[in-house]
Amino acid sequence: MRLTATLSASSSLSYGFPIPPSSSTSFTPTPSPTNCYFHPCAKKFSSLRFKPNKRNITRSAVSIEKEIPETERPITFLRESEGADVRARFEKMIRDAQDSVCAAIEAVDKGGKFKEDVWSRPGGGGGISRVLQDGAVWEKAGVNVSVVYGVMPPEAYRAAKAAPADQKPGPVPFFAAGISSVLHPKNPFAPTLHFNYRYFETDAPQDVPGAPRQWWFGGGTDLTPAYIFDEDVKHFHSTQKKACDKFDPTFYPRFKKWCDDYFYIKHRGERRGLGGIFFDDLNDYDQEMLLSFATECANSVVPAYIPIIEKRKDTPFTDHHKAWQQLRRGRYVEFNLVYDRGTTFGLKTGGRIESILVSLPLSARWEYDHKPEVGSEEWKLLDACINPKEWI
Amino acid sequence: MRLTATLSASSSLSYGFPIPPSSSTSFTPTPSPTNCYFHPCAKKFSSLRFKPNKRNITRSAVSIEKEIPETERPITFLRESEGADVRARFEKMIRDAQDSVCAAIEAVDKGGKFKEDVWSRPGGGGGISRVLQDGAVWEKAGVNVSVVYGVMPPEAYRAAKAAPADQKPGPVPFFAAGISSVLHPKNPFAPTLHFNYRYFETDAPQDVPGAPRQWWFGGGTDLTPAYIFDEDVKHFHSTQKKACDKFDPTFYPRFKKWCDDYFYIKHRGERRGLGGIFFDDLNDYDQEMLLSFATECANSVVPAYIPIIEKRKDTPFTDHHKAWQQLRRGRYVEFNLVYDRGTTFGLKTGGRIESILVSLPLSARWEYDHKPEVGSEEWKLLDACINPKEWI
Repeated sequence: MRLTATLSASSSLSYGFPIPPSSSTSFTPTPSPTNCYFHPCAKKFSSLRFKPNKRNITRSAVSIEKEIPETERPITFLRESEGADVRARFEKMIRDAQDSVCAAIEAVDKGGKFKEDVWSRPGGGGGISRVLQDGAVWEKAGVNVSVVYGVMPPEAYRAAKAAPADQKPGPVPFFAAGISSVLHPKNPFAPTLHFNYRYFETDAPQDVPGAPRQWWFGGGTDLTPAYIFDEDVKHFHSTQKKACDKFDPTFYPRFKKWCDDYFYIKHRGERRGLGGIFFDDLNDYDQEMLLSFATECANSVVPAYIPIIEKRKDTPFTDHHKAWQQLRRGRYVEFNLVYDRGTTFGLKTGGRIESILVSLPLSARWEYDHKPEVGSEEWKLLDACINPKEWI
Repeated sequence: MRLTATLSASSSLSYGFPIPPSSSTSFTPTPSPTNCYFHPCAKKFSSLRFKPNKRNITRSAVSIEKEIPETERPITFLRESEGADVRARFEKMIRDAQDSVCAAIEAVDKGGKFKEDVWSRPGGGGGISRVLQDGAVWEKAGVNVSVVYGVMPPEAYRAAKAAPADQKPGPVPFFAAGISSVLHPKNPFAPTLHFNYRYFETDAPQDVPGAPRQWWFGGGTDLTPAYIFDEDVKHFHSTQKKACDKFDPTFYPRFKKWCDDYFYIKHRGERRGLGGIFFDDLNDYDQEMLLSFATECANSVVPAYIPIIEKRKDTPFTDHHKAWQQLRRGRYVEFNLVYDRGTTFGLKTGGRIESILVSLPLSARWEYDHKPEVGSEEWKLLDACINPKEWI
């Protein structure tokens, strides 16, 4: 039996996963009973809180190979006895954010409606995937939340590395929850948006004395236009900065650079888009403060993005503009399939494929040796992807 | 200075590369001076045989970061003093095959013409990339040849592994030459074809007594339709079998299975297409016999493929058929960017990006949770990709 646990969701959601630091060589993200499985001591579900699909109830609690479709959204994906802690408040925050972003998208799109898929895993956790496809404004919009209980290999757990050489720490149970979204509009002058906020906890490993329980936050919001409107990009970055500045004046410059560094298509020497903010492994601040910060960021998605869409969704365009948008969508595919840690890890460990790949655009294009004319609008976009700019 | 050598060409050409066996953990395909660079003792070019572009003549012979565009095809990409050996005969074979396949494609397409890019690397080697884009029959057809001189890390050299633990073998100079091609037609009833034949040599490492000079052949031809016409697939596989049977009756069944196993999109549980033949590391036969076999396979491309295209290129189709073709093209992109060893290695080591990615289709599509109706023609194709069939 192959046992895997994945924080399956679109694109970079799965960052929340126990992806080891790149320097770690002892960890292979290949499904195997020893590197990523559900905690065998997983508590039984509370029938009051979470009802797995009855057809599958006889499955072993450690068989998490496949997610199970559910007919209803549970009140929570958490296991019982997890009440008012950060896990529960983070889950509520991302589910509220999913509702409000989807409502805003539908209100602007007017035509399209989100299709919802709810799923669970027998050992606990689950997710809600919502996709609007072929709408009036968006050709593909995915907004997913998920909650994952799993066990990470000890090599991936930082504190365990400090264990004495003669002690072999065991697998470390983890909890991860996140929201992830990619919104691809039809109009080539209307930008693609991606955002993802996630919270992560590990238990303290019982066999490594002194090794602590760990938690961290990660996430970001970034903009990928095919054409630059300075005022749009400035508005977008200013909204991110405003959210950051409420908490720490160093956040925006640090997370802006982190975003430019992360969304780098190395083989092209280009960024995927015009950035925004990105952070990971954030735990060196007060936990309450970071929960508020992630909440503020998630709540900033609609005011950062929707006004841009309102302005650009009906701009007249030609086949030339559409072809350029499609070429940039090709770059989006290249980044997500080749570099994005969440996507590549999710694919290799058996996550919910349709949720992971909903981040891919409805269509994309690759022309041999395409080079935009120097000085053209297409060239300006490419230049800004090669040489990231300060927008504020 | 970053030093990298890649057998850059479309899709799977780069298999010929010193990609270590998957069990090797000590090899990282990240560009670095220690894992893949040109041999510092590289001989000077012979001005009679190979003329690097004069604008770049002052570059260091070990700087192979970038390929150099050439204005003319050289008679050979080999270094001087390499005369009538297997290297030279293999280069001639792949260049003849490139000419004949391109001629056959242009004859059928009638509208499109191949655009040629010739390039070299200062330390020796180079390639000819030919691409026909937006033709009458093919939307994208790439046929590339390349010749690479490089040095592989000792970990990737099998024989070096037998060295005593206290001996650290040095980097091993290698030679690789190959032809690679991906042909994507417009009509959804006309299949995509991929083929690739390559020859590989290493020098005997001087510091590992007894370790031999090695050589091997690799390659294959495979068919990726969006719709199944039994007679087409049978004709294609029969032509492959006929080529194989001239040399060894075990070849076709072995290489047919190898092909089904190789072109596997693990996260989908599907093959990319309907297979053909695939082999790698082939050296346990007479070298002359294998050179003839590779030549026979390359010469079988036109008779295996062109009759199918002639039959299907003008078949009337609907938007529904086109959308399905585009979804299957999405799977092609997924395989090539996520799994194809040549592509992923080429991207990470700094190969000629446009040659590597010419294998991607002009356009591709991803719909959320698309499932063809059971029993439909689309379902039949999917079923054959999930459960490979015997076609003869």
